[in-house]
Amino acid sequence: MLIETISTFPHMFDSVMGSSMMRIAREKGALEFRAYDLRDWTHDRHRTTDDEPYGGGQGLVMKCDPIFEAFDQISASESDRPHVIFLSPVGRTFTDADATRLAREKRLLFICGHYEGIDERAYSLADETLSIGDYVLTSGELASMVIIDAVVRKVPGVLGAELGAVDESFNGNLLEYPQYTRPAEFRGMQVPDVLRSGNHAAIEQWRREQSLERTARLRPDLLEGVQLTSKDRAFLDSLQGSAE
Amino acid sequence: MLIETISTFPHMFDSVMGSSMMRIAREKGALEFRAYDLRDWTHDRHRTTDDEPYGGGQGLVMKCDPIFEAFDQISASESDRPHVIFLSPVGRTFTDADATRLAREKRLLFICGHYEGIDERAYSLADETLSIGDYVLTSGELASMVIIDAVVRKVPGVLGAELGAVDESFNGNLLEYPQYTRPAEFRGMQVPDVLRSGNHAAIEQWRREQSLERTARLRPDLLEGVQLTSKDRAFLDSLQGSAE
Repeated sequence: MLIETISTFPHMFDSVMGSSMMRIAREKGALEFRAYDLRDWTHDRHRTTDDEPYGGGQGLVMKCDPIFEAFDQISASESDRPHVIFLSPVGRTFTDADATRLAREKRLLFICGHYEGIDERAYSLADETLSIGDYVLTSGELASMVIIDAVVRKVPGVLGAELGAVDESFNGNLLEYPQYTRPAEFRGMQVPDVLRSGNHAAIEQWRREQSLERTARLRPDLLEGVQLTSKDRAFLDSLQGSAE
Repeated sequence: MLIETISTFPHMFDSVMGSSMMRIAREKGALEFRAYDLRDWTHDRHRTTDDEPYGGGQGLVMKCDPIFEAFDQISASESDRPHVIFLSPVGRTFTDADATRLAREKRLLFICGHYEGIDERAYSLADETLSIGDYVLTSGELASMVIIDAVVRKVPGVLGAELGAVDESFNGNLLEYPQYTRPAEFRGMQVPDVLRSGNHAAIEQWRREQSLERTARLRPDLLEGVQLTSKDRAFLDSLQGSAE
């Protein structure tokens, strides 16, 4: 997969894209990453990418012309057309299902604003506009990195079994059950007996019930997307009974 | 404000924390940032921070003992007790209201998992556990950076008026209106006439209506938190009428 970004702070990506899973994905050849500097498509001495808003107001607005010029040149540099993503609080909220969908693309291009808004006309380049959550960020770079991380880990061959890509949160829409490792006792806190019992059926059942209980308590909205067995339903009913 | 992180990839923070707003905040003295390496609190030759899960399963689990030791030493290094945040999909979903609240803290400490889960007992250190959205990330580092960005920009003195901290998305819970800057026409796309009219009352009304229309169309859930004037209500009613 080829992932490209256009922004005014291309070096913001360096540490994240050069560490850990991203580094492994790039070394394996599963990911190619290029961060372009929007200023390379400006034509004035100061390499200006923003200007005052029409109609007045505080702050500056990112100009659309360098964005279109950058897009034209970058897009034409490869045979695959890029799938273009803008980051904006106005966008639809990104979810793990989007990550699964985007992991099937051959080429993703993120266009990142910084501080200020982007001239509305630039959005005509977008295949989609996404938001990572209901909070204001200074930088589209950071929001892009979040989406890139969620997507790249789903690209086949990136995460080996040793990294635990299986069995994780939001798979099946249930929250993860509690995990424990050695020591069995630490500062008076014990690992639950069942996990040390060697009884695999009992362990599976405990983990399922912990996931169900947590999801019902903390994120009941997620339960709607879960395929529940009759045993699951009986367990959830028993929780309701004990809460009343 | 002092912000500290404990993780196994402390250098993942370098580029983001050294660029743009974060760099300015640190230069101004409004932010002090320290990224600790969890491995400094291990005692074996391989500096092991994770181990196999009790009860079996794929992936490794972060050990709780180095986390407690790191917390004890870091916490005691300053007189202010840190407000401790864990990042987890199990956490409550972070919002801009949380950013406003956390911006009042003197000292924030983020404890970041990576890949795998964290031994459940470590969560007893948490003042709160947050999630930045319904997607799986490889790294608590990236989720921490998102929260740090949203928080630091609200610390008084960090963003000057020139950076446009006013009038922005989620302030007042309405989505931002469209912005435009020069040129007035680009590839056949025009700036709306009203924004070039010089009529400030008409501009204000257009922007308010654009924000209302977008919020009603894209994020109707946000409208509940908005203080609507009778004029706003009449405009929203007119939208409903035209859609039917």
